[in-house]
Amino acid sequence: MARNEQYPAAGKTSERLYVVKIGGNIIDHSGALDDFLHDFAAIDGKKILVHGGGKIATQMGEKLGIPSRYIDGRRITDADTIDLVTMVYGGLINKKIVAALQGRGSDAIGLTGADGNTIPAVKRPVKEVDFGFVGDMLPGKLDEAKVNRLLEMGLVPVFAPLTHDGRGQMLNTNADTIASALAVALSGYYRVRLIYCFDKKGVLRNVNDDADVVPFMDAQVYAQLLTAKALADGILPKLENAFDAIRHGVAEVLIGRASDLKENLGDRVAGTLISA
Amino acid sequence: MARNEQYPAAGKTSERLYVVKIGGNIIDHSGALDDFLHDFAAIDGKKILVHGGGKIATQMGEKLGIPSRYIDGRRITDADTIDLVTMVYGGLINKKIVAALQGRGSDAIGLTGADGNTIPAVKRPVKEVDFGFVGDMLPGKLDEAKVNRLLEMGLVPVFAPLTHDGRGQMLNTNADTIASALAVALSGYYRVRLIYCFDKKGVLRNVNDDADVVPFMDAQVYAQLLTAKALADGILPKLENAFDAIRHGVAEVLIGRASDLKENLGDRVAGTLISA
Repeated sequence: MARNEQYPAAGKTSERLYVVKIGGNIIDHSGALDDFLHDFAAIDGKKILVHGGGKIATQMGEKLGIPSRYIDGRRITDADTIDLVTMVYGGLINKKIVAALQGRGSDAIGLTGADGNTIPAVKRPVKEVDFGFVGDMLPGKLDEAKVNRLLEMGLVPVFAPLTHDGRGQMLNTNADTIASALAVALSGYYRVRLIYCFDKKGVLRNVNDDADVVPFMDAQVYAQLLTAKALADGILPKLENAFDAIRHGVAEVLIGRASDLKENLGDRVAGTLISA
Repeated sequence: MARNEQYPAAGKTSERLYVVKIGGNIIDHSGALDDFLHDFAAIDGKKILVHGGGKIATQMGEKLGIPSRYIDGRRITDADTIDLVTMVYGGLINKKIVAALQGRGSDAIGLTGADGNTIPAVKRPVKEVDFGFVGDMLPGKLDEAKVNRLLEMGLVPVFAPLTHDGRGQMLNTNADTIASALAVALSGYYRVRLIYCFDKKGVLRNVNDDADVVPFMDAQVYAQLLTAKALADGILPKLENAFDAIRHGVAEVLIGRASDLKENLGDRVAGTLISA
């Protein structure tokens, strides 16, 4: 959907929006999740939460006789599995987070990409591997105007990692990708900080020293660290995604721990702040 | 939340809203559900769908080792069971319906009472029976203004039979009751027809003749049928609920088959049309 003309072009507005993504390492630990939701609910102003899946779907699948199958580390989403993740991600995890945020005074509303057709997708075409019911988002089709209307109502959208094909089929979609797409699409309305929570304090200058965090990174610093071969392989895809989001209008990307959320909202951050 | 003063008082507006409730007899049969959703999506104008649970939660619970317990025909919702129904009602069933409606051009958004704090409730107090995590709605607390803003955005709310206690706990709540509460609360904005889909064509004048439907009923007709002891016991609670809704501002209540939805939208109905 085209951006509403009454809004300024990308990056021109000064109101801040936080788009925060949490993954399985938080969702699987109820104490850590509670602490995180406490800090998230306390964020002043507009915010969106995107959550991943965690181990609950796999455990539930084992009990239900739905085996988890992976090829090259990626889950294969067959018909039973899309039902399973729709149930667990879209129902159990999403509504527990919504209820918890409501209990902390945050007016959360749980969504998948099917709800309000906010995130249309297409089933990934079968090439070497048939990933099954996995959704690839359609560029430019995310309905940021509708998401923004929910934000303007004072609601806090909480997205499960699910989309749909517009023809009745739910699809499994990566939470990092959804968070990035929301951040990019809403950059026309807000100065967006996209926060990826993961299990390290930030991007490490020395992979053997968990405390040696790169506090600030732009394309130049990134190039220097790449040349010095200082970065761990695991962080490279995250950084590629981060710079991709920046190139598409997101003001800042923060990579850090969920437990450092409070510090990572301001200018002096505990994690790594990435900007253009 | 108080009704917005810019809107007319109950019953004074002529724009129609349909609030349609479907139960397990439709949800458990995918063919019947598809047919129903086709007809529901085709309703012109504003509409809300409320769905019940069906047998899927019980079947899923058996596989997961969560037994279904009932006292006097009512489900006891212990901690495992509220997780189960949150998953199945709020995830699997709700999102499948949302995706199916989207596939039919209806801009559905799936909700529980926790989402947007639309339906606050309180855990049912323990008297003779501890029903567990069952939610009783709080009179006057349903947020009809927020539901109406979603309707005004062109969205079609699809409610699962779940509420929350505002302190982080999801609660299991009867779908008939949610449908009735939504119909009553939105009567300040719309001329509401509340449609209860069940397994008979309508209210039967003769319980042994499925075709002998009472086409129209008001309090006088109801009293006559009661005196004549013509009505089956099973229909009496539905009729009490219907007349209660009418007394609280709902223009019309329709009791009939899901498969007759199209006929039951107009003035010449297949089921039983109840009004004041």
